[in-house]
Amino acid sequence: MSTGSDSWEKIVRGEIPDTHNVDWEKLRAYCQRLFISQGMPEDEAFIAADCLVDAEMCGVPSHGVSRTSIYLKRLQTKVVAGKFHPVVEKESPASVLLNAGNGMGMVAGRYAMQLAVYKAKENGSCFVFVNNSNHLGMVGYYVRHAAEQGMLGFATTSAPPAMAPWGSKESFLGTSPIAVAVPSHGEPVLLDMAPSLVAMGKVILAAKLGTGIPEGWALDRDGKPTTDPKEGMKGTVVPIGGAKGSGLSMFSQILGGIMSGAEYGPHVNSMWDDFVNPQRMGHLFVAMDISKIVDLDAFKDRLQALREEIKALPKIEGVSEIFMPGEIEQNMRAKRKANGIEISDVVYQELTDLGEQYGVEFTI
Amino acid sequence: MSTGSDSWEKIVRGEIPDTHNVDWEKLRAYCQRLFISQGMPEDEAFIAADCLVDAEMCGVPSHGVSRTSIYLKRLQTKVVAGKFHPVVEKESPASVLLNAGNGMGMVAGRYAMQLAVYKAKENGSCFVFVNNSNHLGMVGYYVRHAAEQGMLGFATTSAPPAMAPWGSKESFLGTSPIAVAVPSHGEPVLLDMAPSLVAMGKVILAAKLGTGIPEGWALDRDGKPTTDPKEGMKGTVVPIGGAKGSGLSMFSQILGGIMSGAEYGPHVNSMWDDFVNPQRMGHLFVAMDISKIVDLDAFKDRLQALREEIKALPKIEGVSEIFMPGEIEQNMRAKRKANGIEISDVVYQELTDLGEQYGVEFTI
Repeated sequence: MSTGSDSWEKIVRGEIPDTHNVDWEKLRAYCQRLFISQGMPEDEAFIAADCLVDAEMCGVPSHGVSRTSIYLKRLQTKVVAGKFHPVVEKESPASVLLNAGNGMGMVAGRYAMQLAVYKAKENGSCFVFVNNSNHLGMVGYYVRHAAEQGMLGFATTSAPPAMAPWGSKESFLGTSPIAVAVPSHGEPVLLDMAPSLVAMGKVILAAKLGTGIPEGWALDRDGKPTTDPKEGMKGTVVPIGGAKGSGLSMFSQILGGIMSGAEYGPHVNSMWDDFVNPQRMGHLFVAMDISKIVDLDAFKDRLQALREEIKALPKIEGVSEIFMPGEIEQNMRAKRKANGIEISDVVYQELTDLGEQYGVEFTI
Repeated sequence: MSTGSDSWEKIVRGEIPDTHNVDWEKLRAYCQRLFISQGMPEDEAFIAADCLVDAEMCGVPSHGVSRTSIYLKRLQTKVVAGKFHPVVEKESPASVLLNAGNGMGMVAGRYAMQLAVYKAKENGSCFVFVNNSNHLGMVGYYVRHAAEQGMLGFATTSAPPAMAPWGSKESFLGTSPIAVAVPSHGEPVLLDMAPSLVAMGKVILAAKLGTGIPEGWALDRDGKPTTDPKEGMKGTVVPIGGAKGSGLSMFSQILGGIMSGAEYGPHVNSMWDDFVNPQRMGHLFVAMDISKIVDLDAFKDRLQALREEIKALPKIEGVSEIFMPGEIEQNMRAKRKANGIEISDVVYQELTDLGEQYGVEFTI
């Protein structure tokens, strides 16, 4: 496999030749069985597998099945609880604090967002804070489910350190995503963004795949630009808009971590090399029932008009189409549903090995 | 007055010599009387004046008293209603749709945020959407008031076109701010940011003051970088993080404009040269009662610990202190409360002229 950012871009787009084409439902069923093998109930294992495979479908392999191995290891070592019961610690008509019982972040996230949706349907809107949780994968996954139920959905999370606060050179803030989505006549309009130019997940995947990274993505531990993802992993990623991206992450730590009673930034234990101390991550999920403010179809009509205006705008040179937030990922999902997902050699081999390791028949 | 970005930076920081030092309370009282002269009730004129002077105090002159003249002209021409009664169009326990009656945006904003706070105190959280409104000044003003009442506060707004969607060269999206704040043991931690590297307001003020702008702030109408703010005003400002800043603004248009039943981007009429058609802007204000999730003092204690950690981090060369979101503005406010506000020659003369024009005694 060649190195360099060109190859990296091709991997992200699923265009490199040395990949395996796999069916998404088979891949999901296999991942589900792997999670069941480590003590997760069937339905919750399904959620975890669905979240990972959905990231692959969207063309976001950094949050996809390449993470199955680490999640399994965390379940096996019991630093993450396979069976757990989220507990409501505080509740008002439009806010909830949920203790995730150190379970899988994806399961806690899916439950928490659904609780926000139920309560928003009753009362108009709802904030659900989650503590005692773990890494929760691609955050767009949760807000999409809210939007599909007629909601404005929002989510963020605390995260381990990967980015320096503006003015510092020390990794302290997480590259916590913020995600927001609304329903449309087609797929939801969905923004899922890290406060850095790229998420640390992409740097980590590049290191795993042995590719380089473009300059501008990451700084090494001395605060100098690097194209080596392994050096970038030891250093920091660069915030968008300087103080602005830094401020966005600060608020993800405050809302996801501090307000929920969970941990943030440097106090979140590493998912990758700490199998003793739980991560104690926290999240925030918000749902707002659009139909209580405006007729949902009228809203979708106006959103459609916005979309058509955007599509008709004059483009800069080299751009063939202007996309709505989330549209590129949705196009990729449709394509991969129909034609299969391209999984890189490295990740495919890893999935094969996991079957042997955990005694699960490899069926993708 | 010299031109160039150096001079511009000094103006922003209130450091240039050809300025007038004025007392903030006198300035606010004078602006209040100007607004009263154009038909606003005393209390609402106070809110409008307070919002403008607060921006000056924070060192954000782009949203300060330099805008008094245009707001007055809009009141005088009755394209904005001086006396109006916001009407609740829809209401649930945790969401409200408010029709601002084409009144001043600052007044509608202050009322709407206060309504969100009241309902959040009762029910946990509340979204208040506002339609039929006008430009509302510095959005941080509203979330600060929410935070001072123990709330997580959030605000955004639709805005007239100033930025191209990522991939286009046409001004279409507003440089709509998003603002979020939480209370602390000291001043609120407050992020108030445009989705562009700088707000178009700063480009407009630079044009008014006859200074240049740094490269990277704006593109001309052909999509090329410019240091001439007048060319920048005809073109677009640059989004942070490319598609990310573009996506943030898209959601401000969707939430502030489309969901509220107001206008967005290209459909928002210009504040500067349309005195016939109302702007029909829309906003969103959200409040969430922190004490219903976590003990407020315990939250503030943990926020204080975060602040101390941030302050103690190693700094990059040339940085003397790492600031929390909003801290620079709060320091400036304290300094200007004590020592007065530096108002530029141009704006000072304009304020003097406004007194003559509207028959209000100049008393600053």
